[in-house]
Amino acid sequence: MSDYVIGVDLGGTRLRSALMDDDLGILFRQEVLTQAEQGFDATYARLVAAIRAVWPETNVPVRGIGISIPGPTNPFTGVVELGTNLAGWHGIGLARLLKDEFGVPVFLGNDANVAALAEGARGAAVNYRHIVFVTVSTGIGGGIIVDGRMLLGEQGLAAEVGHMVMIVDDQVSTLEKEAAGPALARKARARIEAGAISRMHDMVNGDLAKITGKVVGMAANDGDPLAREIVSRAGFVLGCGMVSLLHTFNPEILVFGGGVSTIGPLLFDPMREAIQKYCIDDAYWKTLRIERAALGENVSIVGAGALVITRGGVEDLSAARARLE
Amino acid sequence: MSDYVIGVDLGGTRLRSALMDDDLGILFRQEVLTQAEQGFDATYARLVAAIRAVWPETNVPVRGIGISIPGPTNPFTGVVELGTNLAGWHGIGLARLLKDEFGVPVFLGNDANVAALAEGARGAAVNYRHIVFVTVSTGIGGGIIVDGRMLLGEQGLAAEVGHMVMIVDDQVSTLEKEAAGPALARKARARIEAGAISRMHDMVNGDLAKITGKVVGMAANDGDPLAREIVSRAGFVLGCGMVSLLHTFNPEILVFGGGVSTIGPLLFDPMREAIQKYCIDDAYWKTLRIERAALGENVSIVGAGALVITRGGVEDLSAARARLE
Repeated sequence: MSDYVIGVDLGGTRLRSALMDDDLGILFRQEVLTQAEQGFDATYARLVAAIRAVWPETNVPVRGIGISIPGPTNPFTGVVELGTNLAGWHGIGLARLLKDEFGVPVFLGNDANVAALAEGARGAAVNYRHIVFVTVSTGIGGGIIVDGRMLLGEQGLAAEVGHMVMIVDDQVSTLEKEAAGPALARKARARIEAGAISRMHDMVNGDLAKITGKVVGMAANDGDPLAREIVSRAGFVLGCGMVSLLHTFNPEILVFGGGVSTIGPLLFDPMREAIQKYCIDDAYWKTLRIERAALGENVSIVGAGALVITRGGVEDLSAARARLE
Repeated sequence: MSDYVIGVDLGGTRLRSALMDDDLGILFRQEVLTQAEQGFDATYARLVAAIRAVWPETNVPVRGIGISIPGPTNPFTGVVELGTNLAGWHGIGLARLLKDEFGVPVFLGNDANVAALAEGARGAAVNYRHIVFVTVSTGIGGGIIVDGRMLLGEQGLAAEVGHMVMIVDDQVSTLEKEAAGPALARKARARIEAGAISRMHDMVNGDLAKITGKVVGMAANDGDPLAREIVSRAGFVLGCGMVSLLHTFNPEILVFGGGVSTIGPLLFDPMREAIQKYCIDDAYWKTLRIERAALGENVSIVGAGALVITRGGVEDLSAARARLE
């Protein structure tokens, strides 16, 4: 343990940066507003400043900079394909720009992949080697660790589990379209418009457009029958999606992050039921752990640091850490 | 290239064994009937004899024995959990038994995983590092190579892609239940019983129980409209399953084996359409190769040899081969 690592969480709203030790312990961190609407030049300048703000003043070398990107990112070329909620971030060769600026290696990863790496390095899945991480919020994203290494695929586009097809009917629908926050809200609105009685109507003062996934989750936990039915159905569909992932990856642990997952047992109980009902063998779930994400708002910073340690998620995390010690 | 490798294809009908060089070129092979109905002791004795029959007579060392198993197998413990169509093969510690018998390392793998490894080593996917192999016959199985290494999961139960959930409705259905051979046959029977006109009726002399996936495929390629509709629908569902796998793995190549895949374009054209329609970004399919399996009846033997080279699929195939040279 000698060198420093810098991790950056480039979010659509907040830009967080931190100086970490090799073990990904945060030594110093800071946070500013991204002000992403000001466009690429302004946001990029703020990013450079955020890195400088945590740059060590001693002579201890910085091993590299890792950046968590909200959107499709190619970790091999270091190009941000599309920054979600980042105006003007399209096809940006960010790793090269920052390497020229700071003279150290720079590694990029999309936020869900980075979160999975973080939970495996210091969070809910420490010491596991077969990890499926799923974040359920306005969308459904994922990050998957296969035998200690991040699953990237040819172009770094893997682990987009929200786009698994769940319904093949006259219409095709995906996990995200059935179980993310907007799906909960859409279903609640449709049912109330069709005459269903629910306290959600009063929670938004009759303005049904204001129903969100969060509103549905709150109403469900307050005992509203319609909200409970919708959450239960989402949990069931989520469970069917997990059935696909368990058969495909045979992981040791599922970790859930994202706002919708805070609904808790009303979502997860039907999910477990679906898993136990539809896996072809109980070996897929008998020793499976199901956990909530543990790292909170530092998840992307820690994961960005883990990108540096694993050289973009290409190396085995535990082996990379052992090598450093 | 110095040592020998022995590969065995333990099938429910045929038992094939071969002596190979380090590059998995077959030097000598033989084949006997498995006579699996005679039970474990008889089949095991036949397996030992099949290995002896190809054992080298020179002093060149045998690096190990690889065995392709038809059914769930734990590659880490070397236990055959359940041999499909192999009477009495349940919870058999086969690797240990054969190691005691022959004094060399023994590696097991289930047949679909082994086939994927074979196609990556010497077949349709040579030199690719991100491979999804799918076999469509009486069931749907899979084998997946992630960045050069076989995807095994915690207990070696990964890559069971036929059990991905494809329909969440009042009933839940899977890829296998919708697109494997028996699904084609079931749908054809149901439609004909409901009054649909089809040459399939005459092909089985009116005995609808005799309709198989093969009959449906033949009728489709002969221009029968009902058979074409059923095959097209299966191709579409298969395509939706591939959409899930492309988003999850971002592979360079899809390889298809199994009898149903011999139906050809009537199956694969609608599959490609679904892929292009439902992937969120054309990067998932623009440079994607879609190929038929290339190794034919030697696929399991070659894959069993590749198990030895990669120590059960744990090591990177190309690195393992490079190390040997």
